[in-house]
Amino acid sequence: MIGVDAMKMLLKRIGIDTRRESIAFLDDDDLTSRALGLHSMDRIEVSANGRRILAVLNIVEGSVVPLGTLGLSNVAFEKLGASAGTLVEVTPAEPPASVDALRLKIAGRELSALQLREIVDDIVRSRYSKVELTAFVVSATINGLSDKEILGLTNAMIESGDQLHFDSTIVADKHSIGGVPGNRTTPIVASIAAAAGLIIPKTSSRSVTSPAGTADTVEVLMNVELSPERIYDVVRREGGCLVWGGALNLAPADDMIIQVEHPLNIDSQGLMISSILAKKKAAGATHVVLDIPVGPGTKAQTAEKGERLKERFQQLGLRLGMNIRGLLTDGSQPIGNGIGPVLEAEDVIKVLRNDADAPQDLREKSLYLAGELFELTGKARGEGRALAEKKLSSGEAYEKFEKIRDLQGRRERPPPGSHTQDILAETNGCISKVDNSIITRIAQLAGAPHNPEAGVYIAKHVGDAADSGQLLLRIFSESEESLAFATRYWRENAHAGIEIT
Amino acid sequence: MIGVDAMKMLLKRIGIDTRRESIAFLDDDDLTSRALGLHSMDRIEVSANGRRILAVLNIVEGSVVPLGTLGLSNVAFEKLGASAGTLVEVTPAEPPASVDALRLKIAGRELSALQLREIVDDIVRSRYSKVELTAFVVSATINGLSDKEILGLTNAMIESGDQLHFDSTIVADKHSIGGVPGNRTTPIVASIAAAAGLIIPKTSSRSVTSPAGTADTVEVLMNVELSPERIYDVVRREGGCLVWGGALNLAPADDMIIQVEHPLNIDSQGLMISSILAKKKAAGATHVVLDIPVGPGTKAQTAEKGERLKERFQQLGLRLGMNIRGLLTDGSQPIGNGIGPVLEAEDVIKVLRNDADAPQDLREKSLYLAGELFELTGKARGEGRALAEKKLSSGEAYEKFEKIRDLQGRRERPPPGSHTQDILAETNGCISKVDNSIITRIAQLAGAPHNPEAGVYIAKHVGDAADSGQLLLRIFSESEESLAFATRYWRENAHAGIEIT
Repeated sequence: MIGVDAMKMLLKRIGIDTRRESIAFLDDDDLTSRALGLHSMDRIEVSANGRRILAVLNIVEGSVVPLGTLGLSNVAFEKLGASAGTLVEVTPAEPPASVDALRLKIAGRELSALQLREIVDDIVRSRYSKVELTAFVVSATINGLSDKEILGLTNAMIESGDQLHFDSTIVADKHSIGGVPGNRTTPIVASIAAAAGLIIPKTSSRSVTSPAGTADTVEVLMNVELSPERIYDVVRREGGCLVWGGALNLAPADDMIIQVEHPLNIDSQGLMISSILAKKKAAGATHVVLDIPVGPGTKAQTAEKGERLKERFQQLGLRLGMNIRGLLTDGSQPIGNGIGPVLEAEDVIKVLRNDADAPQDLREKSLYLAGELFELTGKARGEGRALAEKKLSSGEAYEKFEKIRDLQGRRERPPPGSHTQDILAETNGCISKVDNSIITRIAQLAGAPHNPEAGVYIAKHVGDAADSGQLLLRIFSESEESLAFATRYWRENAHAGIEIT
Repeated sequence: MIGVDAMKMLLKRIGIDTRRESIAFLDDDDLTSRALGLHSMDRIEVSANGRRILAVLNIVEGSVVPLGTLGLSNVAFEKLGASAGTLVEVTPAEPPASVDALRLKIAGRELSALQLREIVDDIVRSRYSKVELTAFVVSATINGLSDKEILGLTNAMIESGDQLHFDSTIVADKHSIGGVPGNRTTPIVASIAAAAGLIIPKTSSRSVTSPAGTADTVEVLMNVELSPERIYDVVRREGGCLVWGGALNLAPADDMIIQVEHPLNIDSQGLMISSILAKKKAAGATHVVLDIPVGPGTKAQTAEKGERLKERFQQLGLRLGMNIRGLLTDGSQPIGNGIGPVLEAEDVIKVLRNDADAPQDLREKSLYLAGELFELTGKARGEGRALAEKKLSSGEAYEKFEKIRDLQGRRERPPPGSHTQDILAETNGCISKVDNSIITRIAQLAGAPHNPEAGVYIAKHVGDAADSGQLLLRIFSESEESLAFATRYWRENAHAGIEIT
């Protein structure tokens, strides 16, 4: 296809952070838009010095951009790579090439690996606006993705970004598909595994919808934003690292897909599998233990669905050259005592230090996952859990953690938020339910993960006895206002949050 | 649900036309976003003087908004209705209430009338970002809409906007579902119908994807942007009018839905039916003749699909209290000689004036539709077409058109674009095909509808004899550049554009 016409304009940077969407600005009195037949929200092509980018046009009033000038948002400006004042050429853009494939997906057809590559390429190069991105996610959610499509999509996602490479035939990894607050086993499992000699370069994410991601929690204790070179160095020395994957460019299409999944609060199983497989493979993993929590509100709500999901992960992993072991775990209540970055970091340290008051559920789950990882990698044959327990109890895992902490850049954990509210039992009995989603919401209202010091301390778990007046929860916040919001929410939802029978 | 926190900020208007999307701007050094845990693209609530709006947040660099100040795009600023410098309250917004219903639609469930009303309400009040809007359109496209859903959606769309009311038990209307360039029967049918005494307050649309909408074409000859009061006055005096519906607020959700359908180039039959029914009902119509062109590239590609569509329109129309008569017409090639506003206006005038060189296909089709409208409204019983021909041939229809033209505000038609390119037959034979989509594309590349003078004159239709060297097409443009683009496109696609056998 050919363009209609072209206009020359002066380039200006408009310091607007539009995430990854490239936006161009044109004054509403400028004749360019009329000459080219362009409207606000149309897609244009901007080229200079042989480089060419796509942007979504915003027609603006007032003095934002002078006549004869094209403004570009930060990401667009950087992508074009020309300096302010350069004469750029503006043309109406044809729709991205993969929109034909996208329409086929909407029509219910199975896409080829090539078509999925075109789509991922258009996503990563910001050729998709929110409209196309949402259409892809929603059509993949409604029509599903076949195994063939997941493989094609995963490979395309891997190739669209950078990859880490470690000089080892076994590169261990561990992942949880999420949904359970406080489930912070990763730093413990990685420390145990590295202490036993495994190579485990752990890349983790920040929170998207939870009160803390692993990267948010670990960041309380150490720097997690490392370059690939520093990651290689830490792993060469200690066998493991604990870094934020977002600082790397691993399967970047995934981060853009999450941007539209989040407001809709929808989960496409195919996209989730593809995203996890692509992140693991791009991070260099060969052997992965996959924690699949089962319970209300998790991604695998029943054991049956969990089994099917596990099978799918394992089969597809093999076809990508990864050995994946899916493990169905109890996702019915929060894990550990702390919810929120600082409180979770405290739990992690207590378990690693073998403190007497360390949360036993977090310790047990970490030992189970580490043991399974030893079995999967051939480090143990039947005695995996015992090996994990030895490495933890002996203090070797803690020592490993502290070495990684020093190498990455040690940080000292601040105390939790100074504004607190205790929630006490109002009756005698036995705890029969602690609700994941309500605990999550309280921690978020208190300020987590944005304020790492905010969160919830859970004093009682299911099965514990509770006497009237005993502590159930303590809410921590940095401000009176946030504390009041979280407390009010609790009062309105206490009946569903913790049940005593 | 409750908000997390709130901040007070000074209000500023940022003159950015973001169509109907409300955008808020905050400096990246401002602490508000951190305090509230907000990121670019998050949705916020802004309130002042008891009014409250929703906006999508953009975090901006540089000197766009001072610290402590919240910028709002035009549409958001006007919706809030507060003056610059007002102290406004900013809070993170909960997702729009209807997102739960939207998720049900994605999951394949049938929505209730109440749920559809919530969705339409959120769309019209700009509470939906492009993400939710696209999710709604794509899920309605993939999962379809039941008759019950179409009725619920149509009623919700009607009630979400303004309505016209005429003091007559019969209010005639005419609509084409589109896809055929040059199909400009509306001004002719309306003039004939009004000349015969029918009340026909015609509201038409501008082009979305075609080289001209009826409103674009009529605007060449008269003012089409009338207030409801002036419409009532013109209709009271002459029985009919020819106005742009977009200047009124009829079923406004539809205009927002089109914004995401367009870039995806998808058609949801359910949404299309709902949109047409809502616009007709809101415009006060009781009897509607519906032109359903059948042919490659139209919405009803085969006669069978056309029949099903017609049945659905007629049935649903009855349940909304409208008498609809669907008519399957030949959509295999363009209608009339001119494509583009000025050239089409010329065809319309020639037919109305009974000129010897008036395009006979346009005349015939207009008489057919007008005749059917007479039958449908009981104005005729079997002799509808004869009555239509009488009103046209006698000059009464032209006289009616000219009176409406004078009342609405007469404009004189400019000549077509001065840059022209003739396309001649290169062989002798008979025209066997004139392709709708290629003719459309040439007219658009030449500049239509943005430049009303641009377009294509079609000298030969299917069945006409063509000798080598005879004129097939003449392309009109306002600029050499556009003409060159259109001509180049023709050269590359001539084989598929017109076939001579």
